[in-house]
Amino acid sequence: MTVTTQKTTISAYGRLLDLAREASLLGSTAQLLGWDQEVLMPGGGLDYRSRQLAQLARMHHEMVTDPQFGDLLTQCESDSELTADPTSDEAVNVRELRWAYDRKTKLPPALVEEEAKISSIGQHTWAEARRNKDFSQFQPVLEKIIDLLRRKAECYGWGEGGEPWDALAEDYEKGCTAADVETVFIPLRDRLQSLLGELMGSSTKPSNTFNELPLPLEQQQKFVKFVSETIGFDYSRGRLDTSTHPFCSGTHCNDIRLTTRYHEANVNDALGSTMHEAGHGIYEQGLSYEHVGTPMGNSVSLGIHESQSRMWENQVGRCEAFWRWCYPKLGDFFGTAINGMSFEDVYGGVNIVSSGFIRVEADEATYNMHIMIRFELERAIIGGDLAVADIPDAWNQKYKEYLGLDVPDDAKGCLQDIHWSMASMGYFPTYTLGNLYAAQFFEKALKDMPDLEGQFERGEFDTLKIWLNTNIHAPGQRYRAADLCVQVTGQPLSADPLLRHLEGKLRPLYGI
Amino acid sequence: MTVTTQKTTISAYGRLLDLAREASLLGSTAQLLGWDQEVLMPGGGLDYRSRQLAQLARMHHEMVTDPQFGDLLTQCESDSELTADPTSDEAVNVRELRWAYDRKTKLPPALVEEEAKISSIGQHTWAEARRNKDFSQFQPVLEKIIDLLRRKAECYGWGEGGEPWDALAEDYEKGCTAADVETVFIPLRDRLQSLLGELMGSSTKPSNTFNELPLPLEQQQKFVKFVSETIGFDYSRGRLDTSTHPFCSGTHCNDIRLTTRYHEANVNDALGSTMHEAGHGIYEQGLSYEHVGTPMGNSVSLGIHESQSRMWENQVGRCEAFWRWCYPKLGDFFGTAINGMSFEDVYGGVNIVSSGFIRVEADEATYNMHIMIRFELERAIIGGDLAVADIPDAWNQKYKEYLGLDVPDDAKGCLQDIHWSMASMGYFPTYTLGNLYAAQFFEKALKDMPDLEGQFERGEFDTLKIWLNTNIHAPGQRYRAADLCVQVTGQPLSADPLLRHLEGKLRPLYGI
Repeated sequence: MTVTTQKTTISAYGRLLDLAREASLLGSTAQLLGWDQEVLMPGGGLDYRSRQLAQLARMHHEMVTDPQFGDLLTQCESDSELTADPTSDEAVNVRELRWAYDRKTKLPPALVEEEAKISSIGQHTWAEARRNKDFSQFQPVLEKIIDLLRRKAECYGWGEGGEPWDALAEDYEKGCTAADVETVFIPLRDRLQSLLGELMGSSTKPSNTFNELPLPLEQQQKFVKFVSETIGFDYSRGRLDTSTHPFCSGTHCNDIRLTTRYHEANVNDALGSTMHEAGHGIYEQGLSYEHVGTPMGNSVSLGIHESQSRMWENQVGRCEAFWRWCYPKLGDFFGTAINGMSFEDVYGGVNIVSSGFIRVEADEATYNMHIMIRFELERAIIGGDLAVADIPDAWNQKYKEYLGLDVPDDAKGCLQDIHWSMASMGYFPTYTLGNLYAAQFFEKALKDMPDLEGQFERGEFDTLKIWLNTNIHAPGQRYRAADLCVQVTGQPLSADPLLRHLEGKLRPLYGI
Repeated sequence: MTVTTQKTTISAYGRLLDLAREASLLGSTAQLLGWDQEVLMPGGGLDYRSRQLAQLARMHHEMVTDPQFGDLLTQCESDSELTADPTSDEAVNVRELRWAYDRKTKLPPALVEEEAKISSIGQHTWAEARRNKDFSQFQPVLEKIIDLLRRKAECYGWGEGGEPWDALAEDYEKGCTAADVETVFIPLRDRLQSLLGELMGSSTKPSNTFNELPLPLEQQQKFVKFVSETIGFDYSRGRLDTSTHPFCSGTHCNDIRLTTRYHEANVNDALGSTMHEAGHGIYEQGLSYEHVGTPMGNSVSLGIHESQSRMWENQVGRCEAFWRWCYPKLGDFFGTAINGMSFEDVYGGVNIVSSGFIRVEADEATYNMHIMIRFELERAIIGGDLAVADIPDAWNQKYKEYLGLDVPDDAKGCLQDIHWSMASMGYFPTYTLGNLYAAQFFEKALKDMPDLEGQFERGEFDTLKIWLNTNIHAPGQRYRAADLCVQVTGQPLSADPLLRHLEGKLRPLYGI
């Protein structure tokens, strides 16, 4: 759409974008400081770093809640030409900046302050309780957190027929409700449960030897860097470092920083983590620099972000065609240390399924069960259907029902995740939404490019990357997640593609 | 001194310090971004990084030129109790904050903008001219730079009997005039010239084999990190990384970042650079965290800073006692690769003197000649006694006179340094002032602790470090450089200690 309205309106929109870009610029500085703190900063720097970050947060908050921002938004919204086509760059920027402005200004400052405080105490108390494997130590603080989250949800409000959980989830997955999540999670849970039953009951299982093979860390580093570069992460616009928990951070599309981790006896973990983070990074690098600092230059949602990391980690990095190419590379990087590993040992090893207590150690299939349990619980907690005191029992019951496990203690149970202690509810489902979007996008990509797996076997990943750049990355926030899914695949999000992907790959590996 | 004045004054001083700390906090964020850009940032990030830094610079400038700052300073200055003792924390903070505020507000914004522009063009043009070894290409821009610097000096003003150069040097060495510099430089130049004559004329010379020995980079890294840690750089509050040009950067005393560089066939370069930067780092780590962000928590001047780096690099790292301890360590780190190097090869090798064209490659003794030449020239240029067009001839003449060299081209001559192209004049002398302060402080340290060299032989450096912490680092900006020298050594700065140090060490090594 060409903007041809009178000068004053153009200028209001221009000024709006200037303010947005300024705030984003400062936010990106804070992001870099956060990255540095996690990856490089000497321990002694912690106190001063927290002061630096607090200063930037305060300045950033002033910028994004500046009433001038609200005035300019109102001017832009009242200009019908600017917003005539709801998918034009201008309309999208105005729509999403409005969302962000309202979100930031709806909470009373006292509540924001209370949240920062309770979240800090929450994390501290949670860590202590986890060490002692004792939920009852965490319970009083979590009760306060839940009370605060309910008040927060009231401030935000939720849609007709919706519920408080929706208001909180909006921070992570705009426009996605608990009802939406349930629609895809219920069929996923049911069919996944029976698939897991089939796999666990089978007498054939892939070998685990590849996951126990010690390989020198320096060679692992070179190997995973090579793979991430080959699949399309651009090192002239990014880095790869080491941290305890792998993550992807970046100030903008031309400076994206991945981290991964290495264990001597598990190159599969380093490879999976690196491909996962590289997937996030390829998304970020695929955003438009021209639109940097505005919604048209931003990623859509956590769920869509996770779809990009999971696709490279799982749909690509755990498929047979990928390993037809990558298996011989192991010899190039690890020499004789890899001798004795057959193709089946490796390809089977990276796809082993086994139920466990810990979400972050879970395989591609059972991972979703962990998420669905958390979603069901947090929805009930926020909705008032589950008392905080009853969380451990409810948790353990669901682990028994969905995964057949007897949780031995709270540390391996309801105290394992940091999220709730940080006053973060509504986040968990984005992990599984990511898996669902990944599978649905990838099915479409395979349909559009039937030779894709043949290309993987030859070590060619450009076609997929360009398809993702065009369909998912370059549009920025033009579409919200659910709409993007329909735009790209022609269908609303469904559990079927992920189930087809898991069943189609795992049954043969388990001799079913 | 206890502040016992009425409430309002306390509060003015408190508010003044709050503003200073806020500005310093933001400045430290910019410093971290600068460090990251030099050391880690992927090339693609350059454009956005310059936007981030410009934003921070703008915000920082607003903070430090805020008229409220000036009002608070005036209030504090008029409180006689606050400033009664001129060396009290309060008086020092008010004095140095006043200096900084006046410095920032004396320049008209148009001049600041012009300087940023001309300095950017200057560096670009200089790099091009240096590539082409042709000063005439740089001359027109340098003429504009000199014109601007003269106007800048006029804005700042200078003391009675002083000259424009003084006004510019004030940025690097507060309170130091060209006349002060000359007082120590003339005797230094004369006696150094005759020392160099003696050394060059001697038939005995140390062996150069140590400086040509290839040693693996990974072992060099471990070796120099070990030495820097042993002499007292605290890695729980700092880092060591690699960059093209070694430097020391840090956001505050608990997060100090050194860089160094490695050449396979010159571990001496890596060691010297690392000890030099570690010396800067030990100074920064020795500043008071309690006073962070205020003058009492800041270093004194570039000259004093350089005295700390040079002392560890030269007085310690090139002395015989140090090598009595360090020589056997070479075997620990480099194994058989070091076989065949005698103690004399190593100790002599790190102390070789040879005249060359390039300042940054110069040895401990001739280095000062390079500086004195630049000082004499820039003083004449700014004072109007030397036309820009005549710089190459004047440069070459001085190199012939002081170092006996025929400069082959402008790249190896007057185009070798970046400083003037950045509109930076008055900076060069701080390098040699640093050498002079280092020698004078070290002589006093030896007098206070006669066993110091015995300690070095045993690998003990704590006593010297604590002496420096107490006498030089902890006082922050309580004294300006010249006064600090008198406070610590009982004497004003003199060329004698450095000459005694050089003559005492080099003559025996050259069989004189």
